[in-house]
Amino acid sequence: MFSCIGYAATAPDQPLAPFSFERRDPTPEDVEIDILYCGVCHSDLHMARNEWGVSTYPVVPGHEIVGRVKRVGSDVTRFKAGDLVGVGCMVDSCRTCSSCKEGLEQFCEAGMIGTYNAPDKHTGGMTYGGYSKSVVVYEGFVLKIADTLDPAAAAPLLCAGITTYSPLRHWKVGPGKKVGIVGLGGLGHMGLKFAHAFGAQVALFTTSPSKAEDAKRLGADTVIISTNADEMKAHAGSFDFILDCVSAPHDINAYIALLKRDGTIVSVGVPEKPFQVVTMGLVLGRRSFAGSLIGGIPETQEMLDFCAEHGITSDVEVIKIDEINTAYERMLKSDVKYRFAIDMASLAA
Amino acid sequence: MFSCIGYAATAPDQPLAPFSFERRDPTPEDVEIDILYCGVCHSDLHMARNEWGVSTYPVVPGHEIVGRVKRVGSDVTRFKAGDLVGVGCMVDSCRTCSSCKEGLEQFCEAGMIGTYNAPDKHTGGMTYGGYSKSVVVYEGFVLKIADTLDPAAAAPLLCAGITTYSPLRHWKVGPGKKVGIVGLGGLGHMGLKFAHAFGAQVALFTTSPSKAEDAKRLGADTVIISTNADEMKAHAGSFDFILDCVSAPHDINAYIALLKRDGTIVSVGVPEKPFQVVTMGLVLGRRSFAGSLIGGIPETQEMLDFCAEHGITSDVEVIKIDEINTAYERMLKSDVKYRFAIDMASLAA
Repeated sequence: MFSCIGYAATAPDQPLAPFSFERRDPTPEDVEIDILYCGVCHSDLHMARNEWGVSTYPVVPGHEIVGRVKRVGSDVTRFKAGDLVGVGCMVDSCRTCSSCKEGLEQFCEAGMIGTYNAPDKHTGGMTYGGYSKSVVVYEGFVLKIADTLDPAAAAPLLCAGITTYSPLRHWKVGPGKKVGIVGLGGLGHMGLKFAHAFGAQVALFTTSPSKAEDAKRLGADTVIISTNADEMKAHAGSFDFILDCVSAPHDINAYIALLKRDGTIVSVGVPEKPFQVVTMGLVLGRRSFAGSLIGGIPETQEMLDFCAEHGITSDVEVIKIDEINTAYERMLKSDVKYRFAIDMASLAA
Repeated sequence: MFSCIGYAATAPDQPLAPFSFERRDPTPEDVEIDILYCGVCHSDLHMARNEWGVSTYPVVPGHEIVGRVKRVGSDVTRFKAGDLVGVGCMVDSCRTCSSCKEGLEQFCEAGMIGTYNAPDKHTGGMTYGGYSKSVVVYEGFVLKIADTLDPAAAAPLLCAGITTYSPLRHWKVGPGKKVGIVGLGGLGHMGLKFAHAFGAQVALFTTSPSKAEDAKRLGADTVIISTNADEMKAHAGSFDFILDCVSAPHDINAYIALLKRDGTIVSVGVPEKPFQVVTMGLVLGRRSFAGSLIGGIPETQEMLDFCAEHGITSDVEVIKIDEINTAYERMLKSDVKYRFAIDMASLAA
């Protein structure tokens, strides 16, 4: 074991604060990573504040990790010291079930091991995330990141990126398809970039007319003000696919009505309360309402390679670690364009 | 025009009663059919009582029609006098939109023309359905029925049959697939027969243990009592596909939890109130909740041919037309195994 420092929440009502803990020494199949940047996901806030009721304190959040390999275990073949790498929402899984075998570790039948707040089979405690100086991860869950990508702007690809990339790929978004992205935040802005890069005709749905210009810069061909019933109606039955990135309560039926026959709407925003789904909206058009969860390790690597090839990263505001509590408050007000990334050099050794 | 008799509702609170009206003489592309039997669908009751708020009185319900061709228009090539034929929920559509061109007339962009209570382009009034002596229909919406099938038991195939056949086919139910049918009524009992005939492993979900024996006769390999939480839990994450045939309010999340990764649940029961869908249930497993609406004309013919080949019909209780009001009351109590079919010989000339 070796000593590591980070930032942790120690109770639901406590701000994040400096925290010292131990990391395991790399096993033969592990990679030890010096963390450069860690993106700030809304889940971090939910978990720090125990808003899902499953937090075990102390919680060291962070699952959008970019760093450089410091050392590798003796059996590690794919990485060497100095490599730029990433770690996303998972650090392990059973590796043997059908989902794992198919590279869909996020759906591991035994449950994937989260990067933080998950039972750690090595230490017997809980996993600690990326708001820290370093992390030790089984090489099978470490991703390669091209040195041509800005490491701070690449960090959010590990969660916001793959969460939007995966459903857009799974439901075959591409040329000739009309695609909607609901909500322009951390997820939505990545959805715009990917859908545009895949060659689709892309619309952004937003309640904020002020976001129109930025949406177009990010890849939207059209901006639809979702509170304008006439504007919505003009697009009825015209979308092949809609990616709903909004976590605030909203009427999903208004979007279902915009789908073509056999169209699909996928929620990745996962609002706390159930959606009220009017079944007739699905029946008339054989439409589907589906969910999607991050993406498997092979697809996450594919996404990072795609980003390198197309020069795609997240729009980030880089902060120091001691700004994290303020960042959480700003995130709650959607006051960020479009993701915070913590510069881990700001974490004193 | 020629005179026709039938049974109609003249107001939401009035029982169905004898009614005389006019049918058009067959145009060159029409088929005139002497109706032998008409199945009784729950929609008939909704429409007779204006429960969907769209009824135009008088309403002559009935869209599960089996009869014999009496005469055909000069351009009709596929039918001749004496043929056993069927008419389902639609009697026409725009014939030109992409849905119609693909044989999915139920999703006609201009709106399909319902067999009853729809604007009739020929008469300028509303269409009148199958609770009547005869009907005149464009040949493109007339289906061939094998003489080997019992015409009374074949009638419900035109709505209950295709409504369950189509989603089971669309979502590729077959050998090696574990399939659930929710609810054992008019739709559910056809779902069991088809899913079994397609070679799937079939489970029936019901709240009534007394239905177990009948369910197995109809094609279920397993019967799951949906109110038994332990029984439900034992099947968690194991179904490829679930067809939900229940129109009473129920918790769809309990069924979503039973789907495998990438599994789909389809509602054809269409409860009046929206479903409360917990998005996380869809997200964890990339599951889909979809709708389906009857089936197109080519697929309805395919279904009827499949039924002829496999000897599949509906279980029916044949009634006289003057029993229709009692039959509605019994249908409301699910007191029918599993569909009423009206013997139209009981309708005095």
